[in-house]
Amino acid sequence: MKVNEMMDKNFIVVSPEDDLVEVSILMEKKLRFTTPVVDSQKRLVGWITSLDVNRGFREGKKKVKDVMYAKEDIVHVHDDDPARLAVLEAGEYKVFNIPVISDDDVVVGVVRTFDIVKTLSSLYEVKVYKIFKAMEEELKGVTWDELMEASAIVTRRRTGKRVTANDYEKRIKNSTFGEAIWATGGLEKFFVGLIAIGELVIARKVAKARK
Amino acid sequence: MKVNEMMDKNFIVVSPEDDLVEVSILMEKKLRFTTPVVDSQKRLVGWITSLDVNRGFREGKKKVKDVMYAKEDIVHVHDDDPARLAVLEAGEYKVFNIPVISDDDVVVGVVRTFDIVKTLSSLYEVKVYKIFKAMEEELKGVTWDELMEASAIVTRRRTGKRVTANDYEKRIKNSTFGEAIWATGGLEKFFVGLIAIGELVIARKVAKARK
Repeated sequence: MKVNEMMDKNFIVVSPEDDLVEVSILMEKKLRFTTPVVDSQKRLVGWITSLDVNRGFREGKKKVKDVMYAKEDIVHVHDDDPARLAVLEAGEYKVFNIPVISDDDVVVGVVRTFDIVKTLSSLYEVKVYKIFKAMEEELKGVTWDELMEASAIVTRRRTGKRVTANDYEKRIKNSTFGEAIWATGGLEKFFVGLIAIGELVIARKVAKARK
Repeated sequence: MKVNEMMDKNFIVVSPEDDLVEVSILMEKKLRFTTPVVDSQKRLVGWITSLDVNRGFREGKKKVKDVMYAKEDIVHVHDDDPARLAVLEAGEYKVFNIPVISDDDVVVGVVRTFDIVKTLSSLYEVKVYKIFKAMEEELKGVTWDELMEASAIVTRRRTGKRVTANDYEKRIKNSTFGEAIWATGGLEKFFVGLIAIGELVIARKVAKARK
């Protein structure tokens, strides 16, 4: 995934000569706490936050250029950068928004941390069921019922709880990857459980073939 | 993971009677775009943003209570809620910060979206190597070298690229889960690749045992 698939394209921009009161009204109307400052060619020249506007008001400043950050002092990403980069930078620099520029420095979007959260959590919200369906397709010659039966056996072995194949199927239809990794205690443990299930169905398939 | 493991504990609070100019200076000094409003017992009564402060300045308002949101109009979570809940709410309501309250309504923290991004991305940054180590441990009787050999074979089959067991080992030592799922095209595909590897090492183990 690229940055341009995760960014807000309905961003606002302001120019260095803009009046602070007007910018303040625009930011409030569009609910933007921070916004890129651009030149007449829409190229990134700076960044302004609502905290800077507040300071400007307190100190009697009139224009964006009196309170803005320079381009050199802010984090930015390119539209064809991997989305991962914006994720890492937001976490590292503790910023809420990151301007996205094209190769000629033109601002083409803003990555907002809640867009990142939405993208990351949509991955977490993949149903566990879909992972098992992919597994069924991969393991040729293993039926869905055999897969559910093996899953119930592995679950009984690991947790001591009596679970039927039917119970297991219901559970994975309702639970998500995010819930599963928090429930099993982490990514590795979740995968290891799946591998154990895979190992069991394969062993059973081999045993059946020998009969 | 609970909300209280992911929240900012160095938050600031303001009270409804506080002077807007002083609040504005505090928010700028602490770099807080939004902050909880509390009563004398530190219980949550509202929420104020730097955009509200701007509006207050424009309109000649003097106190926090003149521009704040009421408690009913904001999203909040409890300190013992699952961290997942804050993640989902930030994505759904598109908010940058969520106040965290205890059972008696006292504000005990603030979840910031970049804290969420950091937590989520640290999960993504798990080395793929660790997943293979967990797999080796799970698949009794399969050596690390056999696992790498099977991985190289599966990779060759799927991508057509000539990869040795050695190449493969180097690759997983350097790459993370986040990179791997973006590279393979999604969670299910990544996992299906692991299952294919598991299937192959098990088939080879069975074949060896028969000899």
